[in-house]
Amino acid sequence: MSASLGRRALAEAVGSAALVAVVVGSGIQATGLSHDGGVQLLANALATVFGLGVLIALLGPVSGAHFNPVVTLAAWCTGRRTGGGLTARDVCAYVPAQVAGAVAGAVVADAMFGEPLVRWSTHDRSAGHLLLGEIVATAGLVFLVFGLSRAGRAHVAPVAVASYIGAAYWFTSSTSFANPAVTIGRAFTDTFAGIAPGSVAPFVAAQAVGALLGLVLMGLVFEPQGPAQADASSAQDEPELAAPTLP
Amino acid sequence: MSASLGRRALAEAVGSAALVAVVVGSGIQATGLSHDGGVQLLANALATVFGLGVLIALLGPVSGAHFNPVVTLAAWCTGRRTGGGLTARDVCAYVPAQVAGAVAGAVVADAMFGEPLVRWSTHDRSAGHLLLGEIVATAGLVFLVFGLSRAGRAHVAPVAVASYIGAAYWFTSSTSFANPAVTIGRAFTDTFAGIAPGSVAPFVAAQAVGALLGLVLMGLVFEPQGPAQADASSAQDEPELAAPTLP
Amino acid sequence: MSASLGRRALAEAVGSAALVAVVVGSGIQATGLSHDGGVQLLANALATVFGLGVLIALLGPVSGAHFNPVVTLAAWCTGRRTGGGLTARDVCAYVPAQVAGAVAGAVVADAMFGEPLVRWSTHDRSAGHLLLGEIVATAGLVFLVFGLSRAGRAHVAPVAVASYIGAAYWFTSSTSFANPAVTIGRAFTDTFAGIAPGSVAPFVAAQAVGALLGLVLMGLVFEPQGPAQADASSAQDEPELAAPTLP
Amino acid sequence: MSASLGRRALAEAVGSAALVAVVVGSGIQATGLSHDGGVQLLANALATVFGLGVLIALLGPVSGAHFNPVVTLAAWCTGRRTGGGLTARDVCAYVPAQVAGAVAGAVVADAMFGEPLVRWSTHDRSAGHLLLGEIVATAGLVFLVFGLSRAGRAHVAPVAVASYIGAAYWFTSSTSFANPAVTIGRAFTDTFAGIAPGSVAPFVAAQAVGALLGLVLMGLVFEPQGPAQADASSAQDEPELAAPTLP
Repeated sequence: MSASLGRRALAEAVGSAALVAVVVGSGIQATGLSHDGGVQLLANALATVFGLGVLIALLGPVSGAHFNPVVTLAAWCTGRRTGGGLTARDVCAYVPAQVAGAVAGAVVADAMFGEPLVRWSTHDRSAGHLLLGEIVATAGLVFLVFGLSRAGRAHVAPVAVASYIGAAYWFTSSTSFANPAVTIGRAFTDTFAGIAPGSVAPFVAAQAVGALLGLVLMGLVFEPQGPAQADASSAQDEPELAAPTLP
Repeated sequence: MSASLGRRALAEAVGSAALVAVVVGSGIQATGLSHDGGVQLLANALATVFGLGVLIALLGPVSGAHFNPVVTLAAWCTGRRTGGGLTARDVCAYVPAQVAGAVAGAVVADAMFGEPLVRWSTHDRSAGHLLLGEIVATAGLVFLVFGLSRAGRAHVAPVAVASYIGAAYWFTSSTSFANPAVTIGRAFTDTFAGIAPGSVAPFVAAQAVGALLGLVLMGLVFEPQGPAQADASSAQDEPELAAPTLP
Repeated sequence: MSASLGRRALAEAVGSAALVAVVVGSGIQATGLSHDGGVQLLANALATVFGLGVLIALLGPVSGAHFNPVVTLAAWCTGRRTGGGLTARDVCAYVPAQVAGAVAGAVVADAMFGEPLVRWSTHDRSAGHLLLGEIVATAGLVFLVFGLSRAGRAHVAPVAVASYIGAAYWFTSSTSFANPAVTIGRAFTDTFAGIAPGSVAPFVAAQAVGALLGLVLMGLVFEPQGPAQADASSAQDEPELAAPTLP
Repeated sequence: MSASLGRRALAEAVGSAALVAVVVGSGIQATGLSHDGGVQLLANALATVFGLGVLIALLGPVSGAHFNPVVTLAAWCTGRRTGGGLTARDVCAYVPAQVAGAVAGAVVADAMFGEPLVRWSTHDRSAGHLLLGEIVATAGLVFLVFGLSRAGRAHVAPVAVASYIGAAYWFTSSTSFANPAVTIGRAFTDTFAGIAPGSVAPFVAAQAVGALLGLVLMGLVFEPQGPAQADASSAQDEPELAAPTLP
């Protein structure tokens, strides 16, 4: 549960790479096999649900399985108040590992399908209502991850977070990136799951806004942990994300 | 487990809003991507299964995760007999929160997809056999929720209730609204999941009939809880719906 | 765990009715919405997976959740050897309840979709390779149900049995009826999931052959329970099928 | 947990046969029902997820549920270092049982659908990027199986491994064979899931490379087990793969 920072950062990089490889690769496979946009997104979403759930179950015990700078930063902020959780040094290792992993994952996916290893996406995603979609998607993700922790149910995170993303692929207009590292990685591939570089910054800004909204909402709905619970939390290494079992 | 009524009502509102946003939003996304009605309903149903399971797992520990006036009223009725459960004051907070949340969820979904925020649905659902579908759908839901409680398996409610709705999307002719708050919310959007305002009252009436049938059937199949069990139940706050773990 | 035989038989009837209503109803819905046979069977299979898993989780604690004469008879045979399990009287109540429930389920499904309540199916399923499919499907089901029991994992039956049927819809040529009661019920509806009355008897015969094969294979792969285990088993009511938790 | 080698080898043969029958049979069913390649692969992948999860849950307690020479060999290698696990004699029984079972599974699937029992596949899969897909697919599988063991989560293997394969069908260009026995078995059928005999050897070589990469990556991310843990492991029979519960 207390792996070295090196192993934890590697776990974040590997997990982020695998996540982006699943998203990008399944998008390429789906568009190669079907002409129906609904079937394409079904395949893309189901592959992501299966892959993300496995990654959280497997790497949660090592690094907490964030794979997402927004989650890492929120964990750092909330942990500061209760005294446990991530340190600034952890954050400085996690976030670059996540971004580098995400880019590598896009390159690996392109390579597996014989696509150019890097080609900037031409998939413009700048419409205003897509940004609202990203705000909602990220608010929901943060509300879920930290709400599960406060409710004492972090152990269901592998299934719950994967299921949430599966729903958010469909119910948000942006298909729910909800993750700055993944957003950057997906700019490196001109395939189904790509995002034009010009759309990246607005998406990341919307994700930041959504994360704040999610934390506020979480504070309104869930009781703050008492000192005893906070102590118990800080005794373990970041228990709110450790996701000990895939139920 | 004993959150303030304010937090519990907020949880009901947020959960109902999220549920309707998932149903309506995924319906818009699906009709925008596919011309095959089967693919559209598959996407709509799977998004709902994923989203509803997450919401029950997350908010069950706060409010019981009803998101449904029929369930709230049935919990109040059955709780009166055993001496535990919801009070009339709880019901008066839960039901308006559910309806307001459901309407807000439809508006948010429309906004995310650039649709008019409110436009009455023109989707007529008044055929008689659809009402039979709603009766069956709601009877099954109530039979399940309260049967799990009597069988001592309320902890599987997140997966079981979500799976039930996933099946009921397909096996009932009405695609299983089974929820007056959601029915009202879905009248506010003229998209795939909408319901014409004129069809709302008959649907709600059918849901009430179904709920009664479900309670009767539940009483016939499941042994009543003995006094000891009822006491244990009332010691916890509404254990039959608390759904402690997503397995 | 020791419900009266009346409640247990009612649970078998209700569960069998619900199972057939799910199979038949989702078939009607799917053929009404899609022209792609693959999408139709995906919908039919997923609805059945969701519905069957819920039914086993809910009714397992009452009756063992057989819903299937082949399982009931096999449980009676295997229970006789170890001294626990079903009595002949139980069998005489379970099987008629299953068949009556299955027929009622088909009628309810037809009614929900405005179809004639009873119309013999014209769906001929008499090709020889379909019978081989039924043999394989039923052998696999019996191998699974009784193998889980011998392996001490009956508690995963709700998910495992539902998942098995989801696979068997696709990998067997007959789409896996694997259940005489359901086969009879499906003869009463001339819709997607129907089976012509003339094909029923060969299907049931194939299911009986498959059940025997499944029991033989189970005996070869799994160690017999020692006397201590058998005693522990008989102390509970039919533990091999009780399926205590939906995981 | 300590079944005789005969029973364990039979379990490996039966499991491998069932796995290939599911993969091949669902492929035949899917291509017979749908003209959309995406729907075909969705059906093929979901049937495999359901079937594989059930097989691991059922046969894990008997043999460890490898069904895969690459996993058996990796378990033997890693077990030698910690002192527990498979013996060379076990390996010599498991691998032939897996290959024979896989071939039998393809024949049974063909028989169920009225196809010629054996006809060499004409499905050429020799493009270089497919081999990269197989390397990635097998590296991921080995990383997962042995990483779960090191993380103390082998009990989630039924759901985690099945989910991984469900994702890998889509995100790898080869649709993730990741298994030499299954690869050989799929050469015997000239249907959707077949692989031309000339493509088998390169696929198996790629799988061997992937397995090595997966073990290396596993060693980098996961802490080695201390002696105490290793002892605890060797006390049970191959705990890393025993997969005691389907969660």
